[in-house]
Amino acid sequence: MKSQLVAESAGQRTFVVVLDPGEEAFAQLTAFAVDHGVGSASLTALGAFETATVGWFDPGEKTYRKIPVREQCEVLSAIGDVAIGDDGRPSLHVHAVLGLSDGTTRGGHLLDGIVRPTLEVTLVETPGHLRRRHRPELGVALIDLEA
Amino acid sequence: MKSQLVAESAGQRTFVVVLDPGEEAFAQLTAFAVDHGVGSASLTALGAFETATVGWFDPGEKTYRKIPVREQCEVLSAIGDVAIGDDGRPSLHVHAVLGLSDGTTRGGHLLDGIVRPTLEVTLVETPGHLRRRHRPELGVALIDLEA
Amino acid sequence: MKSQLVAESAGQRTFVVVLDPGEEAFAQLTAFAVDHGVGSASLTALGAFETATVGWFDPGEKTYRKIPVREQCEVLSAIGDVAIGDDGRPSLHVHAVLGLSDGTTRGGHLLDGIVRPTLEVTLVETPGHLRRRHRPELGVALIDLEA
Repeated sequence: MKSQLVAESAGQRTFVVVLDPGEEAFAQLTAFAVDHGVGSASLTALGAFETATVGWFDPGEKTYRKIPVREQCEVLSAIGDVAIGDDGRPSLHVHAVLGLSDGTTRGGHLLDGIVRPTLEVTLVETPGHLRRRHRPELGVALIDLEA
Repeated sequence: MKSQLVAESAGQRTFVVVLDPGEEAFAQLTAFAVDHGVGSASLTALGAFETATVGWFDPGEKTYRKIPVREQCEVLSAIGDVAIGDDGRPSLHVHAVLGLSDGTTRGGHLLDGIVRPTLEVTLVETPGHLRRRHRPELGVALIDLEA
Repeated sequence: MKSQLVAESAGQRTFVVVLDPGEEAFAQLTAFAVDHGVGSASLTALGAFETATVGWFDPGEKTYRKIPVREQCEVLSAIGDVAIGDDGRPSLHVHAVLGLSDGTTRGGHLLDGIVRPTLEVTLVETPGHLRRRHRPELGVALIDLEA
């Protein structure tokens, strides 16, 4: 993973983050947010994975159903945000659409993805921080703008 | 719906908007744009819907063919913009990709979507306003940069 | 193609670019980047194509497998970036998800797309420039933040 601060203005910082082959995207981007003290951000990304796991949230079971994608796939879109979780650390939320070799797609809440050959991420940090709070009655952590 | 102004710089305002369970996303985001006098913006969003309707534009019929998605689905991506319509009010244009429980996807022009449990929207407003003009020969309203 | 500079702040410029029916999106957006001297940018877009070609990168063959989409399709998402290529000119990298008339989707690395009726692009240029270098061992050009 390499990163560059490409713009800074009025407390808003824009980073380009480029992941290397073999890196796991979710862990790496979380580490980036922790290392740079990112408390509020949105991101978009494109690239490709050699394998990934996405999730579909089952409101009845209050958990993510895992959907493995065990083949080389284009990361057609990854859209996400960063907020501060209940543990006081940056918490990532990313959804991804993956393109298979026949052009069909799979997608879900990004659980993990192994980069091959690249993932190009634009992350725009905004000043201050957002909070993400676990909601036991729903089974997920949601951004809480009143926190 | 709750919102927070997370950055402001040189007339450009960034809002995070979080929708609540049961809210209809297209109407709520339009209301947000109206209430905040947004005349030009782009947005990205992620979250989930319990049900939604997307559309495919049929150029022959000059109308949207409705595609109902009557099941819990991840909002894998929502990308959109805001301009001022012929009626002088903010007009939203949003396309969405939705992820089903088996990881396959559906998508189209967003007509409506009922949030469950959240929709997290980052909206970047730019100064001035854009115009969206109905084009009767095409059957749609398009951004007109010469207006 | 028409464009408008909608925001400028601390060397960061935001453009809205609107493509016209019949224009080929990849060539037009590359021309836009060349004409405006864009050396580093990220973009999102929505609209529709009457026909398109996307690609899936085959790591074994080190080339893109072409996937033609020969029907009217919504551009559900297009996410991309701009960097300076080995030839010293702006180089675009865009991934697209396309929505067919039945709501299913196709997607890949955008090779070409003929606009019908519009493509609405928000492009955020950041100061300085990024470099994209061809990597013969991989068969693709990747952003090189150490260049």
